[in-house]
Amino acid sequence: MKKQQFASDNYAGICPEALAAMAEANSGHARSYGDDEWTSRAADSLRRLFDRDCEVFFVFNGTAANSLALASLCYSYNSVICATAAHVETDECGAPEFFSNGSKILAVPGENGKLTPQSIRAIATGRSDIHFPKPRAVTITQPNELGITYSIEEVQAISAVCRELGLKLHMDGARFANACASLGVSPAEASWKAGVDVLCFGGTKNGMATGEAIIFFDRSLATDFDYRCKQAGQLASKMRFLAAPWVGMIENGAWLKNAEHANACAKRLAARLEGLPYIARVYPVNANSVFLNAPTPILEGLHQRGWHFYTFIGGAARFMFAWDADPAEVDRLADDVIAEVKAFGK
Amino acid sequence: MKKQQFASDNYAGICPEALAAMAEANSGHARSYGDDEWTSRAADSLRRLFDRDCEVFFVFNGTAANSLALASLCYSYNSVICATAAHVETDECGAPEFFSNGSKILAVPGENGKLTPQSIRAIATGRSDIHFPKPRAVTITQPNELGITYSIEEVQAISAVCRELGLKLHMDGARFANACASLGVSPAEASWKAGVDVLCFGGTKNGMATGEAIIFFDRSLATDFDYRCKQAGQLASKMRFLAAPWVGMIENGAWLKNAEHANACAKRLAARLEGLPYIARVYPVNANSVFLNAPTPILEGLHQRGWHFYTFIGGAARFMFAWDADPAEVDRLADDVIAEVKAFGK
Amino acid sequence: MKKQQFASDNYAGICPEALAAMAEANSGHARSYGDDEWTSRAADSLRRLFDRDCEVFFVFNGTAANSLALASLCYSYNSVICATAAHVETDECGAPEFFSNGSKILAVPGENGKLTPQSIRAIATGRSDIHFPKPRAVTITQPNELGITYSIEEVQAISAVCRELGLKLHMDGARFANACASLGVSPAEASWKAGVDVLCFGGTKNGMATGEAIIFFDRSLATDFDYRCKQAGQLASKMRFLAAPWVGMIENGAWLKNAEHANACAKRLAARLEGLPYIARVYPVNANSVFLNAPTPILEGLHQRGWHFYTFIGGAARFMFAWDADPAEVDRLADDVIAEVKAFGK
Amino acid sequence: MKKQQFASDNYAGICPEALAAMAEANSGHARSYGDDEWTSRAADSLRRLFDRDCEVFFVFNGTAANSLALASLCYSYNSVICATAAHVETDECGAPEFFSNGSKILAVPGENGKLTPQSIRAIATGRSDIHFPKPRAVTITQPNELGITYSIEEVQAISAVCRELGLKLHMDGARFANACASLGVSPAEASWKAGVDVLCFGGTKNGMATGEAIIFFDRSLATDFDYRCKQAGQLASKMRFLAAPWVGMIENGAWLKNAEHANACAKRLAARLEGLPYIARVYPVNANSVFLNAPTPILEGLHQRGWHFYTFIGGAARFMFAWDADPAEVDRLADDVIAEVKAFGK
Repeated sequence: MKKQQFASDNYAGICPEALAAMAEANSGHARSYGDDEWTSRAADSLRRLFDRDCEVFFVFNGTAANSLALASLCYSYNSVICATAAHVETDECGAPEFFSNGSKILAVPGENGKLTPQSIRAIATGRSDIHFPKPRAVTITQPNELGITYSIEEVQAISAVCRELGLKLHMDGARFANACASLGVSPAEASWKAGVDVLCFGGTKNGMATGEAIIFFDRSLATDFDYRCKQAGQLASKMRFLAAPWVGMIENGAWLKNAEHANACAKRLAARLEGLPYIARVYPVNANSVFLNAPTPILEGLHQRGWHFYTFIGGAARFMFAWDADPAEVDRLADDVIAEVKAFGK
Repeated sequence: MKKQQFASDNYAGICPEALAAMAEANSGHARSYGDDEWTSRAADSLRRLFDRDCEVFFVFNGTAANSLALASLCYSYNSVICATAAHVETDECGAPEFFSNGSKILAVPGENGKLTPQSIRAIATGRSDIHFPKPRAVTITQPNELGITYSIEEVQAISAVCRELGLKLHMDGARFANACASLGVSPAEASWKAGVDVLCFGGTKNGMATGEAIIFFDRSLATDFDYRCKQAGQLASKMRFLAAPWVGMIENGAWLKNAEHANACAKRLAARLEGLPYIARVYPVNANSVFLNAPTPILEGLHQRGWHFYTFIGGAARFMFAWDADPAEVDRLADDVIAEVKAFGK
Repeated sequence: MKKQQFASDNYAGICPEALAAMAEANSGHARSYGDDEWTSRAADSLRRLFDRDCEVFFVFNGTAANSLALASLCYSYNSVICATAAHVETDECGAPEFFSNGSKILAVPGENGKLTPQSIRAIATGRSDIHFPKPRAVTITQPNELGITYSIEEVQAISAVCRELGLKLHMDGARFANACASLGVSPAEASWKAGVDVLCFGGTKNGMATGEAIIFFDRSLATDFDYRCKQAGQLASKMRFLAAPWVGMIENGAWLKNAEHANACAKRLAARLEGLPYIARVYPVNANSVFLNAPTPILEGLHQRGWHFYTFIGGAARFMFAWDADPAEVDRLADDVIAEVKAFGK
Repeated sequence: MKKQQFASDNYAGICPEALAAMAEANSGHARSYGDDEWTSRAADSLRRLFDRDCEVFFVFNGTAANSLALASLCYSYNSVICATAAHVETDECGAPEFFSNGSKILAVPGENGKLTPQSIRAIATGRSDIHFPKPRAVTITQPNELGITYSIEEVQAISAVCRELGLKLHMDGARFANACASLGVSPAEASWKAGVDVLCFGGTKNGMATGEAIIFFDRSLATDFDYRCKQAGQLASKMRFLAAPWVGMIENGAWLKNAEHANACAKRLAARLEGLPYIARVYPVNANSVFLNAPTPILEGLHQRGWHFYTFIGGAARFMFAWDADPAEVDRLADDVIAEVKAFGK
């Protein structure tokens, strides 16, 4: 791919800080399966970052991170409450059901693709008979699949209803760093201080080659989780290479810098397109994505100009920015949109 | 870990060829989930290496590779025949049963930790009632967990009985390169030409950071296997970084060079210890490991000299050599063994 | 429970024909696990009834019948399309996901709780990427959970789209006999002649103590299904007692007589309530249930008069009639409704 | 089957007491899914029989009872320790692995097919690394598959080591009544007083059409077990018919009378064959089975005389007596063995 595309933040490569740490880790021998110094150091870095003596596990990707975390909270006969837009419902090919051996996903519609205390309460208390899988966990994506953040107050309110109803709160943080950057809060404030029990902190979209961290703020929830990872094919033998990028990105702040940059690029595009006729921004731009509704000829014109992007339900086009987004390219995209709008308006 | 250890070939890092390819792949943007040029190129490299238009999938680790491959061959009510020493039986924490939702592992004892046509036939035909999980696949490890290779003729004979009995033949090739190097045969001769249906070709022990290739020689066996990988958390979003090391290691022969070097180090140690009193080599040295029986004081002496190693059933100490084993260190280990033997003999 | 209730057709006992067959089967010894004469005879009775050399399996209940049948059609990464009202979606506590190890249920809204060729096509073709579980089966309930039958033409149209899209068609026939009675068609016309691939024919609601028959019209779909039943805890050791009631009910037509009677009782109640103010019949009365919308005081009055019934989404009260419904009691219920309506109207 | 056979105690029908209770239960309407009076009464009968306020669940068969009970004690990454002869290992087609989603069965050889505190300790403490599924439960069959009982002292000793090692003790009591009869102890003494945590009490072999009771002596282990049963297809809608036979058999002592009779028939055969040349009784006759080693011509002669029986590992023929065994037929079998021995001796 010659030029940058904003179809997905998975199109970007490895950021320098992650790569340097991998290279540094590649010196000499290290014990395997996580019994090495890099893994300890990465876990400690995360503990410091979250200001909490949490349990940390490093796995290969987000599908596994979320599915394993939810499976550890549920039995097969339990259910997991999420928004209809949630990645675990729409884009995991049944992974949560597979890892949990049948926990049902209860997908709840809601404004801006969000769960609310009310919607959680309604679904969690609507049925209590044995024929309905007993609700046991709630998962929210932060920022969510529409690029929208939950405010800290919203997370707290959701957490409160979870606690009241005996539900555990899981946060899918595939882009957790972008949420922290957007909300201007610390990782601790965005997670356990707001009542999150388990967080899947995404490393891949943040700038690594691969890797997510599963963080249990309540250590008792992590009992034997290492066995679960092993059995599910998520224990790296040369774990240092999964751990080192976390060290590299946390210790010098790249995790946040990357997120801030990506968010800024989204805002840059949004600002450039503000007030344009025919173009409607569908959701608030809280993180690193911009969803646009536009007439088909405009979208086709952008495709013809070489831009890749996905269109979603209702036809909205998504543009998503990674740690390496080039502002000049963002501007070029904006220019092209403007040109298409002009052409369309004629 | 300051100095080299020979406790495991997972202690080694990333070989230069794999690392260079990762670095080269880290340029610009690439489509995600395997729809990129590196993934195509890696699959094509493997097809050329195996001289076969096979189906290739890249997953994160060996647990997943073997378990997914076996799950794709079996239904939950089927069984998988393996040797009692097989890694899928002894060291996967129930992963094959987990991925297959219950396929039972039928572990069969045998000389040198090997299956034979006779032992396969006996277990596969011993029961045919509905209360016994119907045998459906055979898995052999090449070289096996005791560092012993199956000869091509042995694989052919096993394959013949598999075909006769309607069983699929899977090869756990966590150290497949070492087997090719040891047997002096091509990958094709060691696999599909000898009747193997599915091979898990290990990249990690061969010199990568992480990654295994699942190779279906019969493409019809691979139907929808990509969905299986996705659901099981084994689809990398930035797949290029899982694929590129294969390109790096295959295109310049590092896969074989690394294996030859590791095997040579095992032979070097074995040769140095040949004829020593008190020391008994337990198994033939076919690949990159040496198993030694020795009096406890000798083994303890080695531990005190700073050597890490595992002891297995019957007390044998295993020494295992990676792509980066330093012959000088191998010699130092040999020297230390000899010194301990002398001390013990006094 | 002193008097009859119409809350569920599961409240009824064993009909005389089923009981007599169980008693007759209880003579002397019989081979176990289905290798007995009653099991053969029951399967043959079903083959004659369906005019087809189908494969027949007897299992304990409907949860297992539907879940095992769907699991045999799907891999874990597949999905099953059903109506949002479908029992497999709403009332099986995740059993289909459990038996299949993760096949996702795709629940589709539709008028009268029915699937249509259009709704099936929309969901089945809406996504074809690897992140979405590949649709593989469609299940329709006949009559459905709202007591409404699919016409033969509707089933044929659904079957046609299934065939076109490579989907298998499963019929949840928990009350299949009621559908045959209502539609006035033969079991063959209602199933395989209309394109159904697998039918779960309910025996329990039809008058047995327990037991459902899984009928594969395409024998190739039933390969090794006996192993699947065994592994899933659905193989009865004294199978004759699960099989004999089928003989008893089929050979003398009780299966149809029971269904006709139950349907007639539903129509009897509906006729009595026709034109009453404040009372709205929610769905057409095709089978053995009547759904009524009524003001809360009326429903509460009925409860106070000792009537048990469930209220569903939107508040509709369901009355359901079994093989043993006493017309006098149906009339008494109608009288009570009328009395409550009068009281409410004052 | 014209005449009685002693191949299996599953060949017998329903005993009068169970049948009478089913008939009595078949009167009028009853609430479904266990919310009926017969189910309460059956559970209370078992609580009185066991002198314990235990949690009781009724399921359809032994495969499900044992597999669900073990699944409730384990996570998928745990393992279950049993004897190599255990039914859960040899004859459940992978059901325990299926219900638990991968818990590995660790089958341990032992004299007379029994586990011992020593063998449990050895396997449970032999490995503690993450690659080995963490032992979590022990299951013993009482009487075991060779017709041998564990003494109360043996169960206590096993329980003690379980408690010490943090393992739960499950008892597969498919023929639990026969054990109580043989040992001359109460159900309480044979179970929770000896340290059993969960018992699967077999009703089918004891004289019912179908049905097993899962009894949790520690109620906390039964949390949400009803959901587990429902999801796994083991919740009967017309539960009264699964429950009533327990009432019938417990309240008048048929459960014990049946077992005593079956045991006595086994002893009767054994006594008749005592001291015969060529015939070797393989195991002590503690319960309702007799295993005989005999020259092939003798066994073939018995087959030719119309006797059905299974031969097991090592060629032993098993004769097994049910609640309805006719002593005259037992004598006829003994006569035929004696005749064959005489013929062979010539």
